Amino acid sequence: MALYATDVKFAGMLHGKVLRSPLPHARILNVDTSRAEHLTGVKAVVAGRDLRAVYGRCIQDQPYYCFDKVRYIGDAVAGVAAVDEETAEEALDLIRVEYEELPAVFDPLEAMDPGSPLIHENLMEYWRGSAYFPVQGTNICNHFKIRRGNAEEGFRDANFISEETFHTQMVQHCHLEPHGAIVRVDASGRIFVWTNAQGPYSIRGELARSLGLPVNKIRVTGTYVGGAFGGKSGLKVEPLCYVLASKVKNNRPVRIVLTREEEFYATSVVRHPSIITVRSGVKRDGTLTSHRVRIVFDTGAYADSGPVVIRSCGMAANGPYNVPNIDVDAYCVYTNKTIAGSFRGLGVPQVMWAIESQMDILAERVGMDPVEFRLKNGLDEGSISATGQVLKGVGIKECICKAAEAIGWKEGGRVRGKGRGIAAMHKSTQTPTSSSAFIKLNEDGTAEVLSSTVEMGQGSNTALIQIAAEELGFDVKDVRIVGPDTDVTPYDQLTGSSRSTFHMGNAVKAAAADAKQQLLEAAADVLEANPSDLEVRNGVISVKGSPHRKLLARQVPMGAGGHFAEGRPIIGRGTYSASGGTSLDPETGQGLNPSVFWIYGAQAAEVEVDEETGMVNVLKVSSAQDVGKAINPLNCEQQIEGAIGMGISTTLMEELKLEKGKTLNPNFVDYKMATSLDMPEMVPLLVETLHEKGPYGAKGIGEPALAPTAPAIANAVYDAVGVRIKDLPITPEKVLKALKERG
Amino acid sequence: MALYATDVKFAGMLHGKVLRSPLPHARILNVDTSRAEHLTGVKAVVAGRDLRAVYGRCIQDQPYYCFDKVRYIGDAVAGVAAVDEETAEEALDLIRVEYEELPAVFDPLEAMDPGSPLIHENLMEYWRGSAYFPVQGTNICNHFKIRRGNAEEGFRDANFISEETFHTQMVQHCHLEPHGAIVRVDASGRIFVWTNAQGPYSIRGELARSLGLPVNKIRVTGTYVGGAFGGKSGLKVEPLCYVLASKVKNNRPVRIVLTREEEFYATSVVRHPSIITVRSGVKRDGTLTSHRVRIVFDTGAYADSGPVVIRSCGMAANGPYNVPNIDVDAYCVYTNKTIAGSFRGLGVPQVMWAIESQMDILAERVGMDPVEFRLKNGLDEGSISATGQVLKGVGIKECICKAAEAIGWKEGGRVRGKGRGIAAMHKSTQTPTSSSAFIKLNEDGTAEVLSSTVEMGQGSNTALIQIAAEELGFDVKDVRIVGPDTDVTPYDQLTGSSRSTFHMGNAVKAAAADAKQQLLEAAADVLEANPSDLEVRNGVISVKGSPHRKLLARQVPMGAGGHFAEGRPIIGRGTYSASGGTSLDPETGQGLNPSVFWIYGAQAAEVEVDEETGMVNVLKVSSAQDVGKAINPLNCEQQIEGAIGMGISTTLMEELKLEKGKTLNPNFVDYKMATSLDMPEMVPLLVETLHEKGPYGAKGIGEPALAPTAPAIANAVYDAVGVRIKDLPITPEKVLKALKERG
Repeated sequence: MALYATDVKFAGMLHGKVLRSPLPHARILNVDTSRAEHLTGVKAVVAGRDLRAVYGRCIQDQPYYCFDKVRYIGDAVAGVAAVDEETAEEALDLIRVEYEELPAVFDPLEAMDPGSPLIHENLMEYWRGSAYFPVQGTNICNHFKIRRGNAEEGFRDANFISEETFHTQMVQHCHLEPHGAIVRVDASGRIFVWTNAQGPYSIRGELARSLGLPVNKIRVTGTYVGGAFGGKSGLKVEPLCYVLASKVKNNRPVRIVLTREEEFYATSVVRHPSIITVRSGVKRDGTLTSHRVRIVFDTGAYADSGPVVIRSCGMAANGPYNVPNIDVDAYCVYTNKTIAGSFRGLGVPQVMWAIESQMDILAERVGMDPVEFRLKNGLDEGSISATGQVLKGVGIKECICKAAEAIGWKEGGRVRGKGRGIAAMHKSTQTPTSSSAFIKLNEDGTAEVLSSTVEMGQGSNTALIQIAAEELGFDVKDVRIVGPDTDVTPYDQLTGSSRSTFHMGNAVKAAAADAKQQLLEAAADVLEANPSDLEVRNGVISVKGSPHRKLLARQVPMGAGGHFAEGRPIIGRGTYSASGGTSLDPETGQGLNPSVFWIYGAQAAEVEVDEETGMVNVLKVSSAQDVGKAINPLNCEQQIEGAIGMGISTTLMEELKLEKGKTLNPNFVDYKMATSLDMPEMVPLLVETLHEKGPYGAKGIGEPALAPTAPAIANAVYDAVGVRIKDLPITPEKVLKALKERG
Repeated sequence: MALYATDVKFAGMLHGKVLRSPLPHARILNVDTSRAEHLTGVKAVVAGRDLRAVYGRCIQDQPYYCFDKVRYIGDAVAGVAAVDEETAEEALDLIRVEYEELPAVFDPLEAMDPGSPLIHENLMEYWRGSAYFPVQGTNICNHFKIRRGNAEEGFRDANFISEETFHTQMVQHCHLEPHGAIVRVDASGRIFVWTNAQGPYSIRGELARSLGLPVNKIRVTGTYVGGAFGGKSGLKVEPLCYVLASKVKNNRPVRIVLTREEEFYATSVVRHPSIITVRSGVKRDGTLTSHRVRIVFDTGAYADSGPVVIRSCGMAANGPYNVPNIDVDAYCVYTNKTIAGSFRGLGVPQVMWAIESQMDILAERVGMDPVEFRLKNGLDEGSISATGQVLKGVGIKECICKAAEAIGWKEGGRVRGKGRGIAAMHKSTQTPTSSSAFIKLNEDGTAEVLSSTVEMGQGSNTALIQIAAEELGFDVKDVRIVGPDTDVTPYDQLTGSSRSTFHMGNAVKAAAADAKQQLLEAAADVLEANPSDLEVRNGVISVKGSPHRKLLARQVPMGAGGHFAEGRPIIGRGTYSASGGTSLDPETGQGLNPSVFWIYGAQAAEVEVDEETGMVNVLKVSSAQDVGKAINPLNCEQQIEGAIGMGISTTLMEELKLEKGKTLNPNFVDYKMATSLDMPEMVPLLVETLHEKGPYGAKGIGEPALAPTAPAIANAVYDAVGVRIKDLPITPEKVLKALKERG
């Protein structure tokens, strides 16, 4: 039974609410909480002065509660814990804050200007991860570079050069369950956190680092998560809860659950709006010679995951293509806006929007079919990535062919207003990272898997149970999964980056193999056989070739006989570390194995464009994804279908609108999402390249199918009516305007 | 921070109370709960009809709530869950029960008569463990036998024969924290139990067996325990809670905590009152030739742990002596009284009361000093136990000598009214049983031990942390222990039988060794050395002989570097099974290794007897215990001191008095316990024989020091004033009466 964070309730639990800044950039002169403190039912009121500390997963730049200044409309200024939400909200109204307004900057290009107001004056003094490179005296919190080959020379070799600039809008994750956490500080000062975050271990580590505590002074229990899509990676509501919990009496737990409005503008995060300029060179025969990609991501007031998102984005800027010469400059830039963070695909949807639109532009320039053009330039087994990695298990061309075929790429004639488009993608996964798992067998031969992977609707529990059952030789119904809980389930870096089936899958597989070896050794004593001569199927251990010499797995562990327990406990442990790589060189972005696997996929879309209204109707989307090996094909297909749905919504409809830092549509009435009625026919297709290091060959499927949807649709729109939309979303207004300009 | 079961509170938690039988033996004709159900605040009312099931760790003879008849005053007839305890109690008053009274039996000897009323008519149909042998058509729920050598022949070889009968009274464990549990049944039917029981896995297993559920449908979380002494082994309040929790709406948790009165007479258990007749033969030179021991334990209305207690008692009936010929008949007998169960020493205090009193009687008959007599007959390395086991690590003689020496056995002359006494003991541990443990290292090089051992004040957490730290080469402050929780901490049979340091200690040691090996392998890569050339001290890994080539343990695991995590997870697993034995033959009690280790100890007491009042004042007790190896000497000494205190209290003062099955003194006003003012000078002494299979040689120390206290005092009383008290407790009345009889 799934218990979500918002369902967790404790005796004596208090409810927290947060007072948020109405100004985009201002110095805090005074916070007067005295009236709020005296309201009946209020148990604690806190402000920045209560804990002058900063946190952040990439760069520690975000205060628990603002103590010197506020940096966006929605920044946390004070918090109240009270017996119920209404009382807490009433208390917020009684807090008086004096501000001194500061010049704000909302445009990321302006924010990069030397004369721009600095949002973080002490940027270089913050703790930061070693993979991130802020630029001193600017609002750039990470500048990621690739220098491979000689881009200038590549342009000289080209017959055609195209330079285009593409934009993506601000969108929100819109997971069904809002961010929620409960924090309790016990009498010994130990901190207990229940949260719907994506990474219980990263939550523990980030809290410990920012508070200067040993990690074991903090226990983080992960709940089921009602959708995340990257929006729940890293600290969000936990710091706000913690300060309140540290101040209330009697060690009462404090709960904060964001409202939907907050989800859209404060504490929560959005997808990075981006400005991407791609200059590409191509020979007459269609061979790509050079790319120069300049990427600007608007990360809002705090870095959050921005630095790692821009890195992931930059690493993919060649697209899934051989580009011998490539320069990438990817900037993650602070503005006085809502914070942007991880979002399904970690910057790849934005860069693929640019690259895959550009591919169609280039194909047209050389007079090639877009599919042919992509196949000509596509990566092969053994190709070298933009960061210098020798690629293995490269399924991109098969994905392109399958997606095209499924949409009937070569069939039929042209119909007015109808068009087809194709787009591809590739994506790295965070490397090096580690996962580990325990397995224990019960007295009745059922098994529990202890894993810190977070189930958030993606089906990781199912896949991990399948892997454990397969390796043990048990029926899946006899395997349960438990966790995550940092006190007991072992280390996992994060549920994100499409890494769980690969990393945790490998750890669970190793733990199951360890347990199985013990099971066979114990059974071998009873069956008077060699452990290596035994096999396990559906929980029955038998001698290979002599199936009558058998034993039920449940007869082996201890305790089956009641009070005096014959047998022995069977427990296994497994770890997986994707190591062996080196850091990327900060000047060239070159390094060894920066991604243990790459994900490849392609989509083809068929659309109908109403030239009267500008409405784009997506008729069909085929999506072929190289999953390595499908552990659960149905689950993989559902991931693809979900991503296509999100892709259509973010391509055609979603846009969070801000004016001078103020969010104009922070609700589901004004923020339009696609519904099931907007969904096209979907054709999910699985390509299995069997990755050499994946469990049974599996890779990941959580993120990738989102990335090609937007450019596939844009390319189809161009095919249908000859207009190219370069700014997302593709609204009827933009299509009409472009049609008018086309004439 | 210790969280006790009685401190656990959940949102929406209901409070349960139990209606108890006022009759010792009666058929239930009708339970009318209708008025109770309508009381405001009552959320569920249950009776036997709601779940006609039986449970029990040795024999499944106890109903959740009585459904056919009641068997003792205090038997659970109905239960109420309400919003608070007061409402639940008020509802109990509204329940009407019609009984048909049945003939009752209170005396265990009468209960053994063929014509006695049967308390369990279907005794032979109950599920039972394979080590227990009820006698059909009687109230005997286990008859444990030993037949070794030829007792009759032994008596013929003897120069003197002594036959005496000894009694022990009913006492209660008097742990500070009462029994408490919370049960919640979720919407999927999964059962969650929080309990202060001594064995979370045995609670899970017993519930599953009696309900016919797979074990993984139940999750048992163990809390800190405020004292147990055996009284919290096996199901107690959990079944009563479960039936209520299964009936309340909205999956609300139901809590039951026994009142102190209930602790004394209902649901809780007491120590078995016993009647032990010992017939012994001895040669003129003091050599024991034969023992015939008849033991009757009054187990009350249900078997609970009685069958295993009588077995443990019977196995020790030779005392720690070579007795070539021995017959033991040990009976566990139902009566219509309060249930008796496990109590520190599992029947050994009772049998040592008899044997060690008898030893002094025999020594006097042959004119030997009691210490000399014991040393002449004491077990040696390689001696054979009464059950045919070759004994190893036998420290009994050293214990006797040390205890005697510490009390000044040979010093000084006689002082009127003062005397010295000595007594010894030995005890088996439940075998075969198993323990298992996980260890995980955190990102900062601290470690967590996952163990299902229950901390109940005995210091197991400290000892297990020490073992893990010692094996890992870490500082103890960097090791934490987590658990127990059957979903995540691996199997352990039970915290009892003085087995945790030995069994779980071995499991933790193995898990730490497994983790250390991985740590050294990972470090070896960095230090460019062979893992076998490395050592770990205080968390520093270095090359043996080259201490400058070093690495901090915390630099090895993953995650230390922040977001991109170099290193690898280090996790270990360890199991220990004391196997290799066989079942004891039901007719002779002979078998292979029925106890993986034996505990040995001796105590000497100095007392002063006031011949005017009969008051016995214990001046000094020395206690030497063969602990194998003291993992934590202070902790071992505290266990000994605690046991001496309990021993003095149960020897001189405590007695639960019943009249026709009704407890007369179920409270701390009328049930007298010794206080700190009654305590003598104590001299705890540790003997280290280094058991070949124990972790670092350690055995157990939880139970043993209680057993010799009573006979040592009785022997000292005899030495002081020449009267032998054979019935516990040694009250002033009994001493005065004996003095009068002596004349």
